[in-house]
Amino acid sequence: MEIKRPLLLISNDDGYQAKGIRQLVEMVSDYGDIIVCAPDSARSGFSCAFSATTPLRLTRIPTVNCQLSTVNSIEIWSCNGTPVDCVKMALAELCPRKPDMVIGGINHGDNASVNAHYSGTMGVVLEGCMKYIPSVAFSLCDHRDDADFEPLRPLIRQITERVLKEGLPLGVCLNVNFPLVEAYQGVKVCRMAKGTWGSEVTKCHHPRGYDYWWMVGHYTNDEPEAEDTDNWALTHGYVAITPTQIDVTAYSALDMIKEWNL
Amino acid sequence: MEIKRPLLLISNDDGYQAKGIRQLVEMVSDYGDIIVCAPDSARSGFSCAFSATTPLRLTRIPTVNCQLSTVNSIEIWSCNGTPVDCVKMALAELCPRKPDMVIGGINHGDNASVNAHYSGTMGVVLEGCMKYIPSVAFSLCDHRDDADFEPLRPLIRQITERVLKEGLPLGVCLNVNFPLVEAYQGVKVCRMAKGTWGSEVTKCHHPRGYDYWWMVGHYTNDEPEAEDTDNWALTHGYVAITPTQIDVTAYSALDMIKEWNL
Repeated sequence: MEIKRPLLLISNDDGYQAKGIRQLVEMVSDYGDIIVCAPDSARSGFSCAFSATTPLRLTRIPTVNCQLSTVNSIEIWSCNGTPVDCVKMALAELCPRKPDMVIGGINHGDNASVNAHYSGTMGVVLEGCMKYIPSVAFSLCDHRDDADFEPLRPLIRQITERVLKEGLPLGVCLNVNFPLVEAYQGVKVCRMAKGTWGSEVTKCHHPRGYDYWWMVGHYTNDEPEAEDTDNWALTHGYVAITPTQIDVTAYSALDMIKEWNL
Repeated sequence: MEIKRPLLLISNDDGYQAKGIRQLVEMVSDYGDIIVCAPDSARSGFSCAFSATTPLRLTRIPTVNCQLSTVNSIEIWSCNGTPVDCVKMALAELCPRKPDMVIGGINHGDNASVNAHYSGTMGVVLEGCMKYIPSVAFSLCDHRDDADFEPLRPLIRQITERVLKEGLPLGVCLNVNFPLVEAYQGVKVCRMAKGTWGSEVTKCHHPRGYDYWWMVGHYTNDEPEAEDTDNWALTHGYVAITPTQIDVTAYSALDMIKEWNL
């Protein structure tokens, strides 16, 4: 009897060269065959965007370029599209069979609270989930290029193993965020916090005389006391696991809108 | 006593020149002051993407260019960014006060089911909702540039009036999709259907010898019999109103993941 090895599809929004995705691949590579298809450069904040009008291209990347030549059974591809494009392209053109798991990350920076809506790493994982593939995003609260992802290894391996073995409910993926601390207080399974971005643009003046703006912003947790949220977990040193769903229907509002009798 | 007129912020993902947004503005312009800030060209499929690394610019558009010179109290701006950028820029730089409502659309094409995740029009509305502003997206199941939006007028006006008067629950926005039919069967308040996109890429060969791909695809409704869904409503001639929420936590999966004892 032939036993097929699990197939793991890995992508991110920081680009295939990022330390986070290279470390992730190295951490989980012994669980199965690996296909990496990731953007050719950073695509932070790309959400679930896909390229409706741009022709897409794929480039095979030698594993040695990603310092992954010791990993067996891996293909690395870069794509000129969005994180979601990468998943769609990999599923259609690169994967010899349906992947057993889609993994996004490790993101340089957190994707907690409303950041889940903007995140390209979550785009990867939502796309996997919309294809009914068990999908998990890993992110670390550290934007630095040389962030230290090593402390995440045991839990990333534990979660990957569990998901490969047991799957996830259809339409549900995991958004896993790691705090930047010396030692984790533990793991919290939590809901996403209510929060808002403010002061989001900074005006500048171009030497040629016109105004332009950079997107920046400060995040505010609008419910800092709520201990069941991802923001609370992260600010108190816990790893935050937020099960996240494709169905965005506001069921609690159905009756109210029905009463409008439109 | 000074009575402030309502302020409506309007954007889309088809670009400020699209017929859908021009018609929308004309339909609701008597409800208050209007600020349009929309992409300078089509941005379909941009989801909640924002521009983390592109400098943004704003261009004031004469109302006559949009055949809206008969509308009083309106400013039209185009922005080189995404639909979400447009909302963020308008809130930060263009709106004299917090808008009473954000409206996205009218989109040329439907945003039902999982399309809500990819839609730039939904990006507009989710962004408004994340800023705690009552927000509504209008879309028509017709991609044509010259689609006839006139039949939508009564319901768009009714919903806009209602939302301006009563608001919406915090964290909940509306995704309103209109079928392309002679006469509506009525209005259904519904959940988003489970559906999947397949055959999403088409491979082509460039004259210079390399392969490239276009994103295309066919949508399949995975629960065509479910009468409480947006897809069912639209295929049976009803207008579909799907209350949609920012909180994407999969509450039903919290206990299961907790039992993993990570």
